[in-house]
Amino acid sequence: MPTYTVLAPAGQFDSARKAEIARNVTRVHSEVTGAQTFFAQVVFHEIGAGDWFMGGVPLAGDQVYVYGHIRGGRPKEMKAKLVLGLRDVVQAGADVEKSKVWVYLVELPPSHMVEYGHMLPEPGEEAAWLAAMPAEDRTMLEAIGR
Amino acid sequence: MPTYTVLAPAGQFDSARKAEIARNVTRVHSEVTGAQTFFAQVVFHEIGAGDWFMGGVPLAGDQVYVYGHIRGGRPKEMKAKLVLGLRDVVQAGADVEKSKVWVYLVELPPSHMVEYGHMLPEPGEEAAWLAAMPAEDRTMLEAIGR
Amino acid sequence: MPTYTVLAPAGQFDSARKAEIARNVTRVHSEVTGAQTFFAQVVFHEIGAGDWFMGGVPLAGDQVYVYGHIRGGRPKEMKAKLVLGLRDVVQAGADVEKSKVWVYLVELPPSHMVEYGHMLPEPGEEAAWLAAMPAEDRTMLEAIGR
Repeated sequence: MPTYTVLAPAGQFDSARKAEIARNVTRVHSEVTGAQTFFAQVVFHEIGAGDWFMGGVPLAGDQVYVYGHIRGGRPKEMKAKLVLGLRDVVQAGADVEKSKVWVYLVELPPSHMVEYGHMLPEPGEEAAWLAAMPAEDRTMLEAIGR
Repeated sequence: MPTYTVLAPAGQFDSARKAEIARNVTRVHSEVTGAQTFFAQVVFHEIGAGDWFMGGVPLAGDQVYVYGHIRGGRPKEMKAKLVLGLRDVVQAGADVEKSKVWVYLVELPPSHMVEYGHMLPEPGEEAAWLAAMPAEDRTMLEAIGR
Repeated sequence: MPTYTVLAPAGQFDSARKAEIARNVTRVHSEVTGAQTFFAQVVFHEIGAGDWFMGGVPLAGDQVYVYGHIRGGRPKEMKAKLVLGLRDVVQAGADVEKSKVWVYLVELPPSHMVEYGHMLPEPGEEAAWLAAMPAEDRTMLEAIGR
């Protein structure tokens, strides 16, 4: 039930790296929060030369910036584990130094989020939410990522 | 007084669909919240093949993801109506199944928002805000979308 | 410790304007909040013709939309000064009328933010945070933007 947007300089990642980063971001989110993997959406934006500045001067070298929109209502320790876990898998997947990685998390009330056409449940109520869904939608969801 | 960003796979929407979605997103926002239509900004991002992942695997098929930044301070029922109304017009405008639509709403304090060069008023104080504005700016605003 | 994303119609800004806007956004953020300039990241997105709508109709003419993600915990007056200061430097740098400028600020808890590989400190605790960092990372940070 998150969306992670990943920005990197154009050309920094080939398809295999994008796939690895997406897979590991999804896995970390699921492992840390307990949410099923089909809830995670990852979108890459490649940023052209001359469009990225750090400290007021043009970016030089590698950079990866991930910002996630996640459901609110989780304990602070879980969120710290999530933000650091994301940093680690993004660093590894991008094969850059740790200092090149930025990660932000924005929390939203579940009632502000529609995914797969359905308003999201509170954290921990996923099973009841899935059970109440039309069988066709549930089957579709459970097939994602398999 | 919102900005809605609409992501879809590159080529999924032609100009006519984008215009219809923008028009209906703007209309729903105005009808549900009571805010004038000139406050709504809608921006489309087309996402290239290989840049979008669901559940850790590449996106297959249609998808539309809308995230809005709106003024905070509105009742929960109004926001639920908004998020579901947005889902419905986006589904219709995009001509996709309901399960292909994601919508997120992020609330901001009005004092964190400048539109048309002016810091925004609290919900319900739009009329006084417009009345206090230089006549030239008010005329410009009221002409938008007419 | 903010990220500012700047949207403008494709071709509205040349490289020199982008550099000037990035430099001044970074400077205003630092002057108003007291945070060091190396914390500011600015990313430009150029939006194609037909992808931007205002009040439900296609954008006509100039427009600049800046949305920032900043650390929470600052006083309201500081944030008002920041949002208006950003408006002013963006207007000047873009050379457009004030009515063409939109600015949004989203606040995040510092513990939801990793920059340069490190989870961010609360506002005002930057010096201790830097002092506790490996010397190599601190030197790298302090060299940015110099």
